[in-house]
Amino acid sequence: MAVGPDNFPEMSPVAGIRLGCACAGIKKQGRRDLVVMALEQGSRVASVFTKNAFCAAPVTVAKEYLAISDSRWLLINTGNANAGTGPQGIVDAKSCCDALAGLVNAKPEEVLPFSTGVIGELLPVGRITSAIPAALDSLSEDGWALAAEGILTTDTRAKGATRSIEHQGQMIHITGIAKGSGMICPNMATMLAFIATDAAVSKDLLQKLLSEAVDLSFNRISVDGDTSTNDSCILVATGQACADSVEDTEHPLFEHLSRAIAEVAIELAQAIVKDGEGASKFISVLVEGGETEQECLQVAYAIAHSPLVKTAMFASDPNWGRILAVVGRAGLKELDVNRVDIYLDKVCIVSAGAKASDYTEERGQAVMNQEEITVRITLGRGDISSTVWTTDLSHEYVSINADYRS
Amino acid sequence: MAVGPDNFPEMSPVAGIRLGCACAGIKKQGRRDLVVMALEQGSRVASVFTKNAFCAAPVTVAKEYLAISDSRWLLINTGNANAGTGPQGIVDAKSCCDALAGLVNAKPEEVLPFSTGVIGELLPVGRITSAIPAALDSLSEDGWALAAEGILTTDTRAKGATRSIEHQGQMIHITGIAKGSGMICPNMATMLAFIATDAAVSKDLLQKLLSEAVDLSFNRISVDGDTSTNDSCILVATGQACADSVEDTEHPLFEHLSRAIAEVAIELAQAIVKDGEGASKFISVLVEGGETEQECLQVAYAIAHSPLVKTAMFASDPNWGRILAVVGRAGLKELDVNRVDIYLDKVCIVSAGAKASDYTEERGQAVMNQEEITVRITLGRGDISSTVWTTDLSHEYVSINADYRS
Repeated sequence: MAVGPDNFPEMSPVAGIRLGCACAGIKKQGRRDLVVMALEQGSRVASVFTKNAFCAAPVTVAKEYLAISDSRWLLINTGNANAGTGPQGIVDAKSCCDALAGLVNAKPEEVLPFSTGVIGELLPVGRITSAIPAALDSLSEDGWALAAEGILTTDTRAKGATRSIEHQGQMIHITGIAKGSGMICPNMATMLAFIATDAAVSKDLLQKLLSEAVDLSFNRISVDGDTSTNDSCILVATGQACADSVEDTEHPLFEHLSRAIAEVAIELAQAIVKDGEGASKFISVLVEGGETEQECLQVAYAIAHSPLVKTAMFASDPNWGRILAVVGRAGLKELDVNRVDIYLDKVCIVSAGAKASDYTEERGQAVMNQEEITVRITLGRGDISSTVWTTDLSHEYVSINADYRS
Repeated sequence: MAVGPDNFPEMSPVAGIRLGCACAGIKKQGRRDLVVMALEQGSRVASVFTKNAFCAAPVTVAKEYLAISDSRWLLINTGNANAGTGPQGIVDAKSCCDALAGLVNAKPEEVLPFSTGVIGELLPVGRITSAIPAALDSLSEDGWALAAEGILTTDTRAKGATRSIEHQGQMIHITGIAKGSGMICPNMATMLAFIATDAAVSKDLLQKLLSEAVDLSFNRISVDGDTSTNDSCILVATGQACADSVEDTEHPLFEHLSRAIAEVAIELAQAIVKDGEGASKFISVLVEGGETEQECLQVAYAIAHSPLVKTAMFASDPNWGRILAVVGRAGLKELDVNRVDIYLDKVCIVSAGAKASDYTEERGQAVMNQEEITVRITLGRGDISSTVWTTDLSHEYVSINADYRS
């Protein structure tokens, strides 16, 4: 089950990025489960990793290597998260990097490892290193679509997004892939995203671009409120399309590039939610009229995490009392409920803190029958707004997560 | 579905408390849905109400009346929460108090109203006031068991607890009833608890006793993390058993009384969880070795609210990776994961931040097959501990909450 049509786009290649896949047999035979990304020399790499205190071995190793070296290779496996594996996990992640480095005459620290899959089982290093040559053989600038498949776990669809912008007569490309599914299912250790552009960008500015894009996209989604040990998001700038390097926010390309990167990240993030475990609805929660972004997000996440609201969404039940009660318990100081309005799309369900006088069950039902729904809450105490995206809570969610390991 | 046997106890009457029930036909015909509690003159009343910013009309009225008057009567209806009903809700709640007061020659502010049921529908005042005489006719010191039934909504069992202690040759009784079910389902506006003792206690000390008991009981349970517009907990001390009033914590009765009230509250709170919507397991989450109670609770609630942990519990799946990942994302500053141990009952599943070396799936499975399970987490950074109680997340939970209004 997933929400909306499966619209995997035509992916624009990014000059300086080649991708290859192989079947390593990590969890299942005959499934692409190993992806290699080759970054042209001179590429800059920005990164955002999980804030979970239990971070997986590949996250620890990637952070260590990023601190001491430029990166030339990304090595991604699914089927095993290499998390909760203690010191052996670190050794195993480095062994995989060593193997790839040896084959391409790179330094081990030029290879960044990424893993997703089952927690607590040791990485099958031999299977991975045996399959690296095949992945290298298949390296191609057109490898994005296969790589998007190769990083999936319980996802039902590949997720990709791509944008092109013109600068000084040159086309600049921004292309990315992601995997999600449970958001975030530690047992399948979930969110990975790899975005690349052939623009030239300074390292500091690239990190700023990624952090801002993540804050507008992957940090605004929730399927079940859990976050993983392995979450990683990488942004690469190869500089191969255009020598004119973006060094600061005044550069004429900056605004366009910033917007395009954010759009790619948001499209990937929304695709993760739409393919969330058991998702039958895509729900945007828009909180307006807050004093601060923090309080808008506080209310929005309270809605997005409420099992009662989410089961009502699954049932297409316009149960406005549940939404109202969640706003009330979201913990905002001195919230004047008499200034709170709540809408389902354009239908006002709560006005000035009580059921809207012109609200009818029929009007609410019409919105709830849709596959995509916006819950809009106006707090009436400021002019800040924020949006998060989530799904309903379905029987299938329970089935998937109750039965996953059996 | 509910966890464990249905052990409704023999309820000790409390001198000075009489309870009566009637069928008002508020939502269904022929069901006891109206309860009156009569408190002997001189009774002291302590109260704790919902912190939800959207509090229901009866909560607003009860707070107003408690501030200006002693209380002699409690009037409780199910089937309608009188929440989200605006100014008319206040008028309606007061009309019901007026009606009872008129019949018993009391002042309206001596009557405290309590409602639970559907949000956003006006209270059927006429049906309630018509049934009050029948409820008054049935007033009896032995009315606890019927009253425990009369306050239920989607609960599948009546919930009661009772203790007796001896003081200076006198028996002191502490008896209470509660309703829960969805914890807390705003549409059925959920938790109500009424506890009474025939000890004599000063008003300030009674409030302290209630606040401390609530903090150890009703504030430690979670079925789905939602809190209601109507939650109310009342503790009455009639002073009818013993003239020796407990005025401070040095009084020889204080410790025994405090413990007995907390035990009644904890038993009621656990009964609410065991009868939680769709509950098939009763889960105690015990966090030890924290620096503060706040951080212990932060970890415990992260576990208790995690849909991934709760679906694994439903499936009897010893999925320790999910528990570990939730501890990691609970937001504790500078958590040293290498000092964290995790147990399922007595089986160590995570030791020093990684899978315990002697852990086997069989040993974990044996615990998970139980109906009652303790998840114990030792943080290794202090000597504070806290416990919360919760349930699994089952298909039945989704069914109940998706289908409730249809």
